[in-house]
Amino acid sequence: MKLACLQENLKRGLGIVSHAVAGKSTLPVLSNILIATDDGRLKLAATNLEIGITCWIGAKIEDEGAVTIPAKLLSDVVGGLPNDKITLQLDARTQTMGLTCARNESSIKGIEADEFPVIPKIDTTDVVTSFPPALLREIIDQVAFAAATDDTRPVLAGVLMRLRGKTAMFAAADGFRLAFRTVELPEPVAEPVEVIIPARALLELSRILGDTESNVEITVTPNGGQVLFHTEQAELVSRLIEGRFPEVERIIPTSYHTRTVLETQDLAKAVKLASYFANASSNIVRLAVEFSDGPTNGKVVISANAAEVGDNKGELDGMVDGEGGQIALNVKFLAEAIASVGTPQIAIEMQTAQNPGVFKPIGADGYMHIVMPMTVR
Amino acid sequence: MKLACLQENLKRGLGIVSHAVAGKSTLPVLSNILIATDDGRLKLAATNLEIGITCWIGAKIEDEGAVTIPAKLLSDVVGGLPNDKITLQLDARTQTMGLTCARNESSIKGIEADEFPVIPKIDTTDVVTSFPPALLREIIDQVAFAAATDDTRPVLAGVLMRLRGKTAMFAAADGFRLAFRTVELPEPVAEPVEVIIPARALLELSRILGDTESNVEITVTPNGGQVLFHTEQAELVSRLIEGRFPEVERIIPTSYHTRTVLETQDLAKAVKLASYFANASSNIVRLAVEFSDGPTNGKVVISANAAEVGDNKGELDGMVDGEGGQIALNVKFLAEAIASVGTPQIAIEMQTAQNPGVFKPIGADGYMHIVMPMTVR
Repeated sequence: MKLACLQENLKRGLGIVSHAVAGKSTLPVLSNILIATDDGRLKLAATNLEIGITCWIGAKIEDEGAVTIPAKLLSDVVGGLPNDKITLQLDARTQTMGLTCARNESSIKGIEADEFPVIPKIDTTDVVTSFPPALLREIIDQVAFAAATDDTRPVLAGVLMRLRGKTAMFAAADGFRLAFRTVELPEPVAEPVEVIIPARALLELSRILGDTESNVEITVTPNGGQVLFHTEQAELVSRLIEGRFPEVERIIPTSYHTRTVLETQDLAKAVKLASYFANASSNIVRLAVEFSDGPTNGKVVISANAAEVGDNKGELDGMVDGEGGQIALNVKFLAEAIASVGTPQIAIEMQTAQNPGVFKPIGADGYMHIVMPMTVR
Repeated sequence: MKLACLQENLKRGLGIVSHAVAGKSTLPVLSNILIATDDGRLKLAATNLEIGITCWIGAKIEDEGAVTIPAKLLSDVVGGLPNDKITLQLDARTQTMGLTCARNESSIKGIEADEFPVIPKIDTTDVVTSFPPALLREIIDQVAFAAATDDTRPVLAGVLMRLRGKTAMFAAADGFRLAFRTVELPEPVAEPVEVIIPARALLELSRILGDTESNVEITVTPNGGQVLFHTEQAELVSRLIEGRFPEVERIIPTSYHTRTVLETQDLAKAVKLASYFANASSNIVRLAVEFSDGPTNGKVVISANAAEVGDNKGELDGMVDGEGGQIALNVKFLAEAIASVGTPQIAIEMQTAQNPGVFKPIGADGYMHIVMPMTVR
């Protein structure tokens, strides 16, 4: 293998595929990035066996070939080189790659490309649907964080994606909260699709969508085993999670007793202050809504109380529709619910203290976030 | 105790004294900040028994009093409040302090002020000398990092400050390197002074000098036990280290065989690249200087070699005075030596491979940094 490419292109490509490199693995080749000539371009690929990311960059290829190189060392070295032409040359006998750029020369020991796991190829003629990258990032940001981070119930570590007609629905739940987002598609899908995508895969997808401009095309393999996200500059393949996702529609409350509209930032700040005390006492923050006949119809008191440490109480004016009431929530889930809403104003819908709290954006449709209440003795 | 002050002043004051709060201590009161009314102002103080920082902020005092409050919680809460008037009120019976700001109320449990260690008072009529804050920070940045971070030889965890006539000298060494700085004083000192100040104390001092404009006055207690740094807004008291500092002048080479002048940034980048390989092989980086008759008189080759990983070699043009030669250095010490120089060009003076390397700024006097060579088998 011998080729030349620009430092900035190689650096950008390594930045994209690095997200799929296995952090710690018993298989050394998973800490490496595959570097291969491919049809006149340079292909970079990494996989942690759950997801695989591939990207292609322009290169002037002299000799074909492939090798895998330790991801961290390669990224460090390329990142430290000046923005100039880099020449890559593989010594096939020692599997050592030489990098020359300006007056700097490195050689890095690699592992044979044969040992690198095959990243499944998916036929992109079967594209199911596509999303503008900014919209897909918004959906992922609003939904994926609510998935479970452990694997005690594998389906909860995933995000449900359901495509039916012209409606796309995304949902994630970890047993304590549920994030739910619907989007209208410009074109109806040919066949309904219902898959569970690992939340980690979507979070990595969100990171690599940074400077993508063209639509992200989504393809699901006919056997339902894999999903492919295809952008102009990169491809992410993820395994799908088998199993039955909880019936989301049954969790969503259909009515409320009290609905309160608040300034999102003010609420976030008051919850942040309460969190310093809640952290020392089971993480409980209380929201108490009081209806009144004043100019703003009511107020919300946010409070936390830690016996050994102290307590905090903040008051906000709000538009209250209903009789008022209170609810106790986990402060982390509350703070993340508020952050996920993304509009200057937020609506909180409550029933009794034993029912979940529902958080919705004001002036944007299709999103809701539900947090289960905590029992306060 | 009852008083009112502005959130931004209290936040700034807490930011300054927090640097002296003990990270982890068996004595709970050392995790607290002393808050006390003091002659019409609010005094804040913290200590970890090695250093103590005190600062005063404007306040409208209604009732005198004092208490200590957990530093982290107090800083978090004050940082989260809006920039408005904060009212502080102590419940003397429970030692709980109430904070009210806008529509937010907190109460934080404290510890009695009597339990707080007394921070030594030093008479500032005995000021020895003073430095502009920017110059003092520069000196600390150039010297203090070279002190030992463990306490196996206590004097090496300190910075030697020697004041004689119109010359101030600062030095730190950890057995592998020596940083040395001299400064001309505008006025001679009345009596020679030679003290060893803990490097940690100077690093904290550097942090709190941020927006100080007036001179920093230095006072040493007559018994040589403590040093006081007094600025307009804060005071830092530190214990001094007893013992005999190594004879600095005997370590400094008086001559060189080869002197090379390089662009500091280019050298830093080449060393950074080499470091990725050196990290995998005893941290050794080699500098090889070659004299030649070219337009720049010579070049330097920076290289590192890690058997299992790979190797790296970078070349820089430089002005070489002498026959050339080479030296092997610890990459961390080399990188920190280069960073400490602070001028666009750097001079490296070498004798044989068994002698230390000397790093000096070009166009700035009074600083040198000496790094012991590594033995390469």
